[in-house]
Amino acid sequence: MAGTFSQLLRKSTNERCSRIVLALDVVGGAGRLVDRCIRILEQTAQHICAVKLNRHVVLPLGLEKTATLVDEIHGLGLPAIMDCKLNDIGNTNQVIAKYYFDAGFDALTANPFVGWEGGLKPVFELARRLGRGVLLLVYMSHPGASEGYGQKVLDERGGGAKPQYLVFAEKALKWRADGAIVGATYPEKIEEVKRVLGSEVPIFSPGVGVQGGRVEHAIRAGASYLVVGRSIITAESPRSAAEELKERANRALKER
Amino acid sequence: MAGTFSQLLRKSTNERCSRIVLALDVVGGAGRLVDRCIRILEQTAQHICAVKLNRHVVLPLGLEKTATLVDEIHGLGLPAIMDCKLNDIGNTNQVIAKYYFDAGFDALTANPFVGWEGGLKPVFELARRLGRGVLLLVYMSHPGASEGYGQKVLDERGGGAKPQYLVFAEKALKWRADGAIVGATYPEKIEEVKRVLGSEVPIFSPGVGVQGGRVEHAIRAGASYLVVGRSIITAESPRSAAEELKERANRALKER
Repeated sequence: MAGTFSQLLRKSTNERCSRIVLALDVVGGAGRLVDRCIRILEQTAQHICAVKLNRHVVLPLGLEKTATLVDEIHGLGLPAIMDCKLNDIGNTNQVIAKYYFDAGFDALTANPFVGWEGGLKPVFELARRLGRGVLLLVYMSHPGASEGYGQKVLDERGGGAKPQYLVFAEKALKWRADGAIVGATYPEKIEEVKRVLGSEVPIFSPGVGVQGGRVEHAIRAGASYLVVGRSIITAESPRSAAEELKERANRALKER
Repeated sequence: MAGTFSQLLRKSTNERCSRIVLALDVVGGAGRLVDRCIRILEQTAQHICAVKLNRHVVLPLGLEKTATLVDEIHGLGLPAIMDCKLNDIGNTNQVIAKYYFDAGFDALTANPFVGWEGGLKPVFELARRLGRGVLLLVYMSHPGASEGYGQKVLDERGGGAKPQYLVFAEKALKWRADGAIVGATYPEKIEEVKRVLGSEVPIFSPGVGVQGGRVEHAIRAGASYLVVGRSIITAESPRSAAEELKERANRALKER
């Protein structure tokens, strides 16, 4: 697909009037896995703006078959995000990122906790060179997120204590990330992060539905995109589930 | 292989008089990759106590071929560690951990930053049930590690500020991890972490050689195992490189 990740995402968002990123986290045998993924994709494609894969499908498929699935996603006019939550040393991060970009992914997720020098710097440099995106974890959607993402850290420059997620939001701005991930289960955190990011870095919010987050709360608080997996893929009709979520998000956006 | 991860590791450490964990981070086409890995394994097996794989080989191979490589590692009497640095939500961590344990890995690495509830709890529970191990990242070997692992965090119970890596060392004790990973590039951090862990949780130390860490400094500071990749696998003779590292580590251990 031509264009940078951010351009592709804006294009598909506008074309489909959707803010829903489908998390295609399907589990099962490698053979049937691709078929199941494609069936869900075909049913939901008109109601979503991007697709996110995770190790659920990438590990059993391996990179070669994953690349075929990414082709299918592109064939539907959608960008593909690899949710690998990179958090290794720079050399390894770069090897992993290159594998995923070579497989066709338009963006990947990374954990800013790993730091810049010898950490995420090589990943951002590679992504920039290839026109791909990097989305940073800022606050995750699970209860234990409070232990790390919610802890208070001392400002290096002696400015007192600050929540970890705001430190991460500032890194997202400074490193010019293509997105910041904040759990829909914590709308008050989305609001705080939004105040830091303004319109510079869009917020992607997972955790709606099964994990307990609400579409309306996340959007009102400032999320630009909702990342939804189980509420769509385990629904009796993934198509209707995606459509309903899309419409709810759009209504909440209009009221914002 | 029969026994828990810790038992297997102790057994192979004693049998081979070695504290060297080989990081088999070979890059290349999927076909030749397995052959190259096996060649390095056969050359080094008598001088190492375990093998660690990372996404360098696991992504191009996919799980099925990775399982074959793990069989080869077991065939040489060595335990296999998957260095996946888990840091996702619990549900996803569990899916990933199950894939790796099903592929035969005896232990995996995880980032304690993700927290317990809905984070690493399901991974520890699964590992305990299967007799597998979990090694926690406590301080990584790259320069940017200071940003996250080196930051000062406020004690929840009002006890002032504390370095992140000591918070993680305490979690390694509390969660009964099978190992704590501290970069050989920071021997003074190894010493501090060792003071927290005592003989309860062994320290695994990557970063010797190419990354600048020294065998003797890491061992003297309290590391029980050295995790070595490039210094062995890119050496003209991986066998001699592994043997020399083993002997240097053993000498340093005797002087401790």
